[in-house]
Amino acid sequence: MKNENSLLAQLIKAFKILPGVGEKSAQRMAFYLLENNREGGTKLSKLLTNAMENIRNCASCRNLTEDIYCDICSDTKRDNSTLCIVESPTDVIAIENSGSFKGKYYVLMGRLSPIDGVNPADLGIPKLIEDINANDIKEVIIATSPTIEGDATSFYIKDQITKENIIISRIAYGVPMGGELEYVDNTTLSRAIQGRREIEK
Amino acid sequence: MKNENSLLAQLIKAFKILPGVGEKSAQRMAFYLLENNREGGTKLSKLLTNAMENIRNCASCRNLTEDIYCDICSDTKRDNSTLCIVESPTDVIAIENSGSFKGKYYVLMGRLSPIDGVNPADLGIPKLIEDINANDIKEVIIATSPTIEGDATSFYIKDQITKENIIISRIAYGVPMGGELEYVDNTTLSRAIQGRREIEK
Repeated sequence: MKNENSLLAQLIKAFKILPGVGEKSAQRMAFYLLENNREGGTKLSKLLTNAMENIRNCASCRNLTEDIYCDICSDTKRDNSTLCIVESPTDVIAIENSGSFKGKYYVLMGRLSPIDGVNPADLGIPKLIEDINANDIKEVIIATSPTIEGDATSFYIKDQITKENIIISRIAYGVPMGGELEYVDNTTLSRAIQGRREIEK
Repeated sequence: MKNENSLLAQLIKAFKILPGVGEKSAQRMAFYLLENNREGGTKLSKLLTNAMENIRNCASCRNLTEDIYCDICSDTKRDNSTLCIVESPTDVIAIENSGSFKGKYYVLMGRLSPIDGVNPADLGIPKLIEDINANDIKEVIIATSPTIEGDATSFYIKDQITKENIIISRIAYGVPMGGELEYVDNTTLSRAIQGRREIEK
């Protein structure tokens, strides 16, 4: 762009803050809205302002919500005795879409990383432990990511849970369904072998 | 998403109107802004409203601008005697970035397509012809896309220009630089052979 200060150039630059959006995609987005969908652009703008101002963390599980408690925490039909600990709101969506969990969640909004200054308090772990002690939770499923930091976060949480008669589990990491062994990376295969389970007779 | 009417679900849906953005990318965008860059989100929102309301077509070349005349049309250093006709503002950016043209532009904002109801008046072709007749233009370069509709648009414009002593050219279509012949598609190769030029001795 010739004029770096033009409204168009500024809009293209603003689009580039979005993840996965480079110069070309940002241009396409700006021109698409300006040429074909100004109404959609205005709507997107209004929703953005509204969301940036009104979406906060759920007072119970720390997931994102515009209310005090998120939809899942306010849902009385869900099983209060199992708690799934995840790193981010997208993980909640992924697990919800799989339809395989009917309990409640706790969203850490990150993972332990002393180098980046992310400590247990930033992830709300003290509150999580309090919640576990105060409520009638029978099983805690730790679903942090299979990375060094995700593993460390998982170990830390497991160590902090001192309550008795509680099952602490971690979701299974291994070969994905439909995955051909020869294309699976070494770390995943190694995890799959470590995590092998006896076949019931 | 469980609740289709939540602000978050609406924001994700609004992002999906952008070209190349599906459900997953829209989720990533929404969560990225909410978790890491609310300030950027608010800024993007303000720029979007501003752009949707204030960016219009240049009164001279129909390119997008927030002023009456765009930067290129207002630039007195550019060559008024050559006019490059393109389909869209992104084409102007592409040609400007190539640094190979110093004249003025005319942006059609589309191409002739009777099936979709796009006629010459929609593309501002009558005004373009008036401009060519009224001004001291020595060469018109038609840079519409090498598609059936782009070709038709090019032929139509060429036929409409009745002024004498004017060069009408079309940009060259052929094998791209660095392209291996064996990977070039048939239509491009056919164009490249049709458009062959004698090598000067």
